[in-house]
Amino acid sequence: MEGYRVAIVGATGLVGTEFIRVLEQRHFPVATISLLASDHSAGKTLAFAGQEYIVAETAPDSFRDIDIAFFSAGADISSHFSPMAAASGAVVIDNSAAFRMAEDVPLVVPEVNPDDIALHHGIIANPNCSTIQMVVALNPLHQANPIKRVIVTTFQSVSGTGSAAIEELTTQTRQWLSKEEAVPCVYHYPIAFNALPEIDKFLEDGYTKEERKMENETRKIMHAPEVMISATCVRVPVFLSHSEAVTIELSRPMSPDECRAILSKAPGVSVVDDTSTSLYPHALMAANTDDTFVGRIRDDSSHPGGLMMWIVADNIRKGAALNAVQIAEEMIKRNWLKPGASQ
Amino acid sequence: MEGYRVAIVGATGLVGTEFIRVLEQRHFPVATISLLASDHSAGKTLAFAGQEYIVAETAPDSFRDIDIAFFSAGADISSHFSPMAAASGAVVIDNSAAFRMAEDVPLVVPEVNPDDIALHHGIIANPNCSTIQMVVALNPLHQANPIKRVIVTTFQSVSGTGSAAIEELTTQTRQWLSKEEAVPCVYHYPIAFNALPEIDKFLEDGYTKEERKMENETRKIMHAPEVMISATCVRVPVFLSHSEAVTIELSRPMSPDECRAILSKAPGVSVVDDTSTSLYPHALMAANTDDTFVGRIRDDSSHPGGLMMWIVADNIRKGAALNAVQIAEEMIKRNWLKPGASQ
Repeated sequence: MEGYRVAIVGATGLVGTEFIRVLEQRHFPVATISLLASDHSAGKTLAFAGQEYIVAETAPDSFRDIDIAFFSAGADISSHFSPMAAASGAVVIDNSAAFRMAEDVPLVVPEVNPDDIALHHGIIANPNCSTIQMVVALNPLHQANPIKRVIVTTFQSVSGTGSAAIEELTTQTRQWLSKEEAVPCVYHYPIAFNALPEIDKFLEDGYTKEERKMENETRKIMHAPEVMISATCVRVPVFLSHSEAVTIELSRPMSPDECRAILSKAPGVSVVDDTSTSLYPHALMAANTDDTFVGRIRDDSSHPGGLMMWIVADNIRKGAALNAVQIAEEMIKRNWLKPGASQ
Repeated sequence: MEGYRVAIVGATGLVGTEFIRVLEQRHFPVATISLLASDHSAGKTLAFAGQEYIVAETAPDSFRDIDIAFFSAGADISSHFSPMAAASGAVVIDNSAAFRMAEDVPLVVPEVNPDDIALHHGIIANPNCSTIQMVVALNPLHQANPIKRVIVTTFQSVSGTGSAAIEELTTQTRQWLSKEEAVPCVYHYPIAFNALPEIDKFLEDGYTKEERKMENETRKIMHAPEVMISATCVRVPVFLSHSEAVTIELSRPMSPDECRAILSKAPGVSVVDDTSTSLYPHALMAANTDDTFVGRIRDDSSHPGGLMMWIVADNIRKGAALNAVQIAEEMIKRNWLKPGASQ
């Protein structure tokens, strides 16, 4: 079959299995698929398009006959194996934070900066989940009326941490309901029935790395080094989808109606906003869908001409696997990725 | 026994039972206690200071021999019975939204505006829970360096809605864990493992009443009509305590250290802020305590000289019952409330 020789590194993880699902659902032209993971997960079997595959351990020679390698196995694995994969001729689309801010690595959200893909030298970085959904919604507004300042508070689901965190929330929830003590392991404090303003490591200035990522990645993706951004990233007892309360100041005043008109035509965005019938996006509604949902669009009552909104998306799909596959699709559409199996 | 003849209206509710606990714990000088509720709850028994009391139905003559009446039975009950109680000579401390913005009704947080109590004509209003914890933390900063703008995103627990919402979260959590469909009743959408940006009714301009309360009540309590405020109020699957991500702009720059120094001396505030050891306040930690906890104090990276912080408090204690009892204690301390039983 004509198509691409695809590798998935971290295939047994949450994002890895979502890669498989997204490739199947979108009928991505796959010639061969290579499912890779750590030695711990090697030997497991996973299904792709109705066939069983044995997961192999990621090794230096894993990328010899690969056209596209989707990485989602953490920054260490990416740092180690991505350059080898690129050297073997594969295009790497990396979901880790390892290369996102590297100058010669494009950081891409296809709805926002698809042209940046052309600048790659073998590695393309997939942005942080909370950043992706924010820029999908903010960039169309920024194009119409440059954004000067963004203040964002996130409500992030535990799936962003991985399978262990999903298990921790499930276990702690059961413990709480049966009045047992909830013992934290993945997080510093219990996450069940709690809200923890700590995602990724703390930096010297009191921000977390996750909050800093939202600043730096947003500026890089939107080509807007002048935008001022501050974030508070909070983990909440939600399994899937991130929600964000976003306040923006623009160069000129923008009305909620103008904002809705722009966003209703924006790629990847779905406006869900009718407060008269309590219609707004929420995590459960966005789970397992592809769009970035925006609602609660209103004037910022603390800053005339500013806007506030509520942005929700599935962090494992649009925030990770789907965005990466969309990057590959964009490359195919632009003829930047030749099917290797036919070479 | 010398003391005050106390009535609690809405005694069987979440805040009502917390009133009982707070009065006991603080050894409030109670001469007699009268537990009142709707006809639906009348006849139940509740314990106070080791004695059982039968709950009576609230009636026009319920306040004949009462010095202080704590109301927490909703705005309708307060609107109807508070004026009667005040006319009977009782001082009403009302936890509902009925009178908060009335010009002749003081809206009081004892740490912030105790002098306002003197202006009452029989009714004193207890502010909204999310507002109380925010002004306890912000007012000391405002006194040192006037605050010009506040942007707040809340993470509010279901206890703020009442007992039915606690039951709904519990039930939906069990349903989710056993893969049954969660049917919403109290809220428009399931609250278990979700985050809903809808608290109280929606207004024409896209804000909710809860968000508008945070604007108006904050200005009234802090005597700061010029402060610009915008709020996003979000219900999260947490049983007790509200958390708030707060961004402020001040008249002059303020450093995080200066902010911490001011707050560490502020009444009712506890600074819990050492990110090097992942020390910050969270909902479970604040539950069943009296203080307003502040952490994650840092420069606002989107506005030089501005600050961001994370404010957490028990919404049923400091956000409701405790604050109301503290108002009564302040009146006793200032000799504004004579013990009626000895009259």
